[in-house]
Amino acid sequence: MSNSVPRTGSIKNKIVASDLEEERKNLNFDQMELTEFLYYGKENYAKYQGWIKLVEKEPILANHHSWYDMTREEQMECQLQKSRRMYEIDRKEYFHDVENGFIAWYNAILKGVYSFGLNFTMFMTCIESLADDEQRNQWLPKLKDLKMIGCYAQTELGHGSNVAGIETTATYDNTTDEFVINSPTLTSTKFWPGDMGKISCYSCVYARLISNGKDHGVQPFLVQTRDLATYEPLPGVEMGDIGPKFGYQSKDNGYQIYKNLRIPRYNHLKRFSEVDREGNFKLKGDQRILYSIMLLTRVQIISYAPFAIFQALQIGTRYAVVRRQFSTLDGTKLERKLLDYQTHMYKYAPLLAYAMAFKFSGHYLIKLYEKVMDGVKNNDFSQLELLHHLSSGYKAVYTKITYDAIDDVRQSCGGAGFLQWSALPQYQQDYAPNPTFEGDNTVMLQQCSRLIVKTVKGLAKGKKAEGNFSYLNNILGLIEMKSTAKTVEDVLSVEFLETALAVRSAFKVKSTVEDLMKSKASENQKANSEFAIDIISMSTAHVMYTTFYNFKNGLSIIKCNSLKNHLNNLLRLYSISELIKDNQCLYESGFFSSGIMNLLNQALKQLLKTLRPFMIPIVEAIQIPDVILTSSIGNSYGDIYETQLEWAKSSRLNKSTTIRGFKENILPIVNGKL
Amino acid sequence: MSNSVPRTGSIKNKIVASDLEEERKNLNFDQMELTEFLYYGKENYAKYQGWIKLVEKEPILANHHSWYDMTREEQMECQLQKSRRMYEIDRKEYFHDVENGFIAWYNAILKGVYSFGLNFTMFMTCIESLADDEQRNQWLPKLKDLKMIGCYAQTELGHGSNVAGIETTATYDNTTDEFVINSPTLTSTKFWPGDMGKISCYSCVYARLISNGKDHGVQPFLVQTRDLATYEPLPGVEMGDIGPKFGYQSKDNGYQIYKNLRIPRYNHLKRFSEVDREGNFKLKGDQRILYSIMLLTRVQIISYAPFAIFQALQIGTRYAVVRRQFSTLDGTKLERKLLDYQTHMYKYAPLLAYAMAFKFSGHYLIKLYEKVMDGVKNNDFSQLELLHHLSSGYKAVYTKITYDAIDDVRQSCGGAGFLQWSALPQYQQDYAPNPTFEGDNTVMLQQCSRLIVKTVKGLAKGKKAEGNFSYLNNILGLIEMKSTAKTVEDVLSVEFLETALAVRSAFKVKSTVEDLMKSKASENQKANSEFAIDIISMSTAHVMYTTFYNFKNGLSIIKCNSLKNHLNNLLRLYSISELIKDNQCLYESGFFSSGIMNLLNQALKQLLKTLRPFMIPIVEAIQIPDVILTSSIGNSYGDIYETQLEWAKSSRLNKSTTIRGFKENILPIVNGKL
Ligand SMILES: Cc1cc2nc3c(=O)[nH]c(=O)nc-3n(C[C@H](O)[C@H](O)[C@H](O)COP(=O)(O)OP(=O)(O)OC[C@H]3O[C@@H](n4cnc5c(N)ncnc54)[C@H](O)[C@@H]3O)c2cc1C
Ligand SMILES: Cc1cc2nc3c(=O)[nH]c(=O)nc-3n(C[C@H](O)[C@H](O)[C@H](O)COP(=O)(O)OP(=O)(O)OC[C@H]3O[C@@H](n4cnc5c(N)ncnc54)[C@H](O)[C@@H]3O)c2cc1C
Repeated sequence: MSNSVPRTGSIKNKIVASDLEEERKNLNFDQMELTEFLYYGKENYAKYQGWIKLVEKEPILANHHSWYDMTREEQMECQLQKSRRMYEIDRKEYFHDVENGFIAWYNAILKGVYSFGLNFTMFMTCIESLADDEQRNQWLPKLKDLKMIGCYAQTELGHGSNVAGIETTATYDNTTDEFVINSPTLTSTKFWPGDMGKISCYSCVYARLISNGKDHGVQPFLVQTRDLATYEPLPGVEMGDIGPKFGYQSKDNGYQIYKNLRIPRYNHLKRFSEVDREGNFKLKGDQRILYSIMLLTRVQIISYAPFAIFQALQIGTRYAVVRRQFSTLDGTKLERKLLDYQTHMYKYAPLLAYAMAFKFSGHYLIKLYEKVMDGVKNNDFSQLELLHHLSSGYKAVYTKITYDAIDDVRQSCGGAGFLQWSALPQYQQDYAPNPTFEGDNTVMLQQCSRLIVKTVKGLAKGKKAEGNFSYLNNILGLIEMKSTAKTVEDVLSVEFLETALAVRSAFKVKSTVEDLMKSKASENQKANSEFAIDIISMSTAHVMYTTFYNFKNGLSIIKCNSLKNHLNNLLRLYSISELIKDNQCLYESGFFSSGIMNLLNQALKQLLKTLRPFMIPIVEAIQIPDVILTSSIGNSYGDIYETQLEWAKSSRLNKSTTIRGFKENILPIVNGKL
Repeated sequence: MSNSVPRTGSIKNKIVASDLEEERKNLNFDQMELTEFLYYGKENYAKYQGWIKLVEKEPILANHHSWYDMTREEQMECQLQKSRRMYEIDRKEYFHDVENGFIAWYNAILKGVYSFGLNFTMFMTCIESLADDEQRNQWLPKLKDLKMIGCYAQTELGHGSNVAGIETTATYDNTTDEFVINSPTLTSTKFWPGDMGKISCYSCVYARLISNGKDHGVQPFLVQTRDLATYEPLPGVEMGDIGPKFGYQSKDNGYQIYKNLRIPRYNHLKRFSEVDREGNFKLKGDQRILYSIMLLTRVQIISYAPFAIFQALQIGTRYAVVRRQFSTLDGTKLERKLLDYQTHMYKYAPLLAYAMAFKFSGHYLIKLYEKVMDGVKNNDFSQLELLHHLSSGYKAVYTKITYDAIDDVRQSCGGAGFLQWSALPQYQQDYAPNPTFEGDNTVMLQQCSRLIVKTVKGLAKGKKAEGNFSYLNNILGLIEMKSTAKTVEDVLSVEFLETALAVRSAFKVKSTVEDLMKSKASENQKANSEFAIDIISMSTAHVMYTTFYNFKNGLSIIKCNSLKNHLNNLLRLYSISELIKDNQCLYESGFFSSGIMNLLNQALKQLLKTLRPFMIPIVEAIQIPDVILTSSIGNSYGDIYETQLEWAKSSRLNKSTTIRGFKENILPIVNGKL
């Protein structure tokens, strides 16, 4: 260990900080294999690189730190300019050939949330899934070419999670063959949809279909809301932005109020139901497919979570190996790198472990989704329930952990993480809606529990549990087990960790299901008043176990042995972190007994030590280039001071030496003139 | 339970929502006693009401929701106008007679962080504590009258937590009898101080005092930075705002770079050290008093924490008793109030319990602070160490929990909590620096541990532990104890809860101190590399136990019996929440054994049920009026929809029907012209 002052990084002069360079030398595995894995495959990563090349070539597309200092209006204009340029460059590539993951890339290369994000996800998915063939052929090409720009108008002021409570009405008028769209109450105001306020000219409106005096429940309708020539709102619709938010500044989440707005009967999305000329309503096809829209978005949210953690970690970890503060490591006079504090490794390494675990689940879930959708096309709905169960549980647990992880990284950077220039605040703020939208997390964990309960009830009837439920076949055995772990090596064994997580989940499942079955209360009371806490806790433990299962089983596809070794350590760290966080059931069941705490603690510290040298090589596998990252403390040069000061100087408030209002209001006081 | 549709609240028409009215009827205790307690006494509360009356009378002082939609420049101007008005109304009352708590009130009645906040806290405290009498007499009246506006310039780009590493120099020039202030390196740039960039004209600069070629360590200097007539920066100082942040938008956290800036020798704050005409440096008085500046600020942070939680809860709880979603309670056809979900009570009630616990600690600590400072004035430093220990530990633990609590409440409101109009995002964003400034939390918990270790080592030498350390006198007895709790009533007894928290802390203290004493590593390695995690965990457990102790002992001052009853339940809930969160040591020590989990779970649910009817009466004791609160979902009328829509309509983006850049960039695409 040397005492010579480390070389300072400078992005301007292309000098890499020696502290960062040194960390990179610890690379001992096939980093590209990890990178491609993180991007869900070689092909996807190549695509991402394509986007980046484009951004590097076209200055208007590049991110600039001034973004963080812009007003909402300016940010939105900046994004529209970028979109326009993409359209000019290659409208086929960037708009017409929209494919899975398009939005994820677009969001990942842009600062802020993509202007047409809802058009190309929820709105498009709606048309794809709920419109019949004729409607799809007519509308899909238009929306992909931005001739129709749409939003997904489900939520109302009065109803978010409870979609069945929606109040907007679409009343069939058989004299004109039209639906008349109305917002009959204050609470029926459409409120929240992204792209609704300013960008879109169409809404996919969820409304109660009323025909011949009968309410047929909530149905989707394509509603034009603006004049396409002038882009003014049409008569019969009042609309606008809903205001500033915690994040999502560049997104025009909006409101719409309808007053006798007429649309052709044709605009009812009619793949699964139809109203005829006389107003008779009928269902068509298997309604279970309606699940699939939310499912896709949830799978996307789940598969994006690890990326969100990696993004933050790439910044935090680089900062933590260049930033030095306080007492020295033995043998040197330099201050200590933040990452050389045990507490700092404990802040970061578990997050990396969770991110990796989520990644393997993501891989598993994407495959499952494809399989299930193939099935559905052939009228096989057998695995839809499983996919719903997993995607709702994973969505809830992963988004919560991910949101907290980004915030933890931000806080771990001290003051620097509180500055927008670090990029961390916006990551956190823009990630924040994930626990809320596409199914509020509390509600999702309730839904996730259903298949668990059903499976356990099935066991009693002799029905075997399968796949990552199969641990429940041995539910009684599990809760009787006693750990035989005596050494740190024992608790670090994958078998021990798997068993411990399985026992924990089994214990919660068993006691919750028993409570539910014993209680004489109504189903409603049981789920919401009496055992709601237990249900959430049970679902979470099950999610954590199955996540382990996906991680462990997924490792077989990794080729490089030293990479596999690191991933194995992250699998262990994931498990140990879980077992430290929530272990009460394990003592209660007798699986854990006195002494295990010390072993877990030592195992944790050992893993932190083992992983320490490889943090930079592992985290940097995410390969987000500086031109995208736009962080004053996380660039690839380890330049954590020069850029911070330079960007500070560029603060908008520095355009003049004092601020507006000072000379008028305060200077007279200072000068004794008041 | 009735099925009739609840009456909607309307702040405009002064109609209280029937759902909220109904909850208020559950008030069964002396709410004013609680209110006065929450404000640290009758007198303080009267003062707060005085501020509010003023705000209600003077339209320019009132908060307006447009604040949330302002740029940083606009917010700052708005605050300067308010300050000017206060100065005009009564400069004596609002400026000259600045007292403890002034800033807390100012921050509580304003949106955003007060423009002169640092002048009236850190800067003023510096002059008060570190300047000698002559300097104080000269400067204090000026700064209170805004003739001098100052900031506290400690942190540099390169050094935050490690103040000893500061690089700015103040070199004595005996030819002119001046100090020459310099920023010799990039990393010595002053960076972060509030009020520094735009508002202040003086800085209390921490710099290395160099005289006759010798470095005498970091010392405070009063440095003028702007010309008072023009308010332009003086030659020799480059200064500005550091940029947009996660929160604190209206605060000009700044940077300053000094280049041969000369100040008279007199401007060295010389209460505790002095440089004579020849440049000889000497210390004066007891240096331990230097502690006291940070101590005061930390005590203020601690005593503000419960207010911050209550603020958020007042909004969340009102929303949760008016907002209804999904399934009904048995016996009614209405949707269920959010607060009637067990999970929702579990989101809020423990936060209320923690807030109350922090409140009692705040009371205890303020008294201790006064006692210690009285002692210090008479050269009695005996309790300074205890105060440092408690204030660092409480600061770290409470700010973390408080920050998370505000965020939890924000998330629990679904989409509505993501809108700035709800007031919750800004609470969270402005609270966010608390875990970082005035001593980073990780560093604080390290410091907190020292007195614990010292106390245990003292025990071995026969020295008795006192006050809220006295549980450690029985450390060996505690870790041998077995719980005899058999029923839910047993675990709800205050004795059981106290013992459990004491055992938990004692167990951690014992094992950590033993580890520290056994290890052969250097002190540095032990504290930072080997046992850092354990030290943090031990300090936290000790803080939680002593918090219980303050809560329990503090209850004796409560007069109203039914209020005391509620507080007793909150004391229990605080403890049960802690024991559910972290109980591993209790199983390890044998205090807990199989079966206790179920009892704790039942006890928790019972407390949630018991507290449910009183949530509104308890939370509303904080009495923040609508004109201060400025929340679209938390006003006193339970108007959660009308205001939300009205404010939405006023969004800045709605000044025109489309947004800037749309017609230029995108409309040509929509219209097929590109
Ligand atoms: C940034 C953002 C973008 C959005 N974009 C769109 C969009 O494009 N289109 C669109 O239609 N909508 C959109 N939404 C709305 C989003 O779908 C809703 O916010 C979401 O469905 C939650 O509903 P809510 O906000 O009404 O919360 P609520 O459903 O009112 O929930 C509030 C609270 O009650 C609790 N709760 C509710 N039900 C239960 C229950 N059964 N058990 C226990 N607790 C319960 C929740 O956990 C939560 O804490 C968006 C929202 C955000 C924040
Ligand atoms: C809004 C705001 C206002 C401020 N106002 C002022 C002001 O008015 N005047 C002023 O002088 N300063 C001010 N500051 C600066 C503030 O005092 C520093 O941010 C604070 O001291 C922390 O220092 P840092 O940011 O350099 O973080 P660092 O000290 O670099 O810490 C970064 C990380 O390293 C970890 N770390 C550091 N040391 C250790 C250790 N020994 N053991 C384990 N972990 C460690 C920390 O836990 C943290 O995670 C302000 C900051 C903010 C955010």
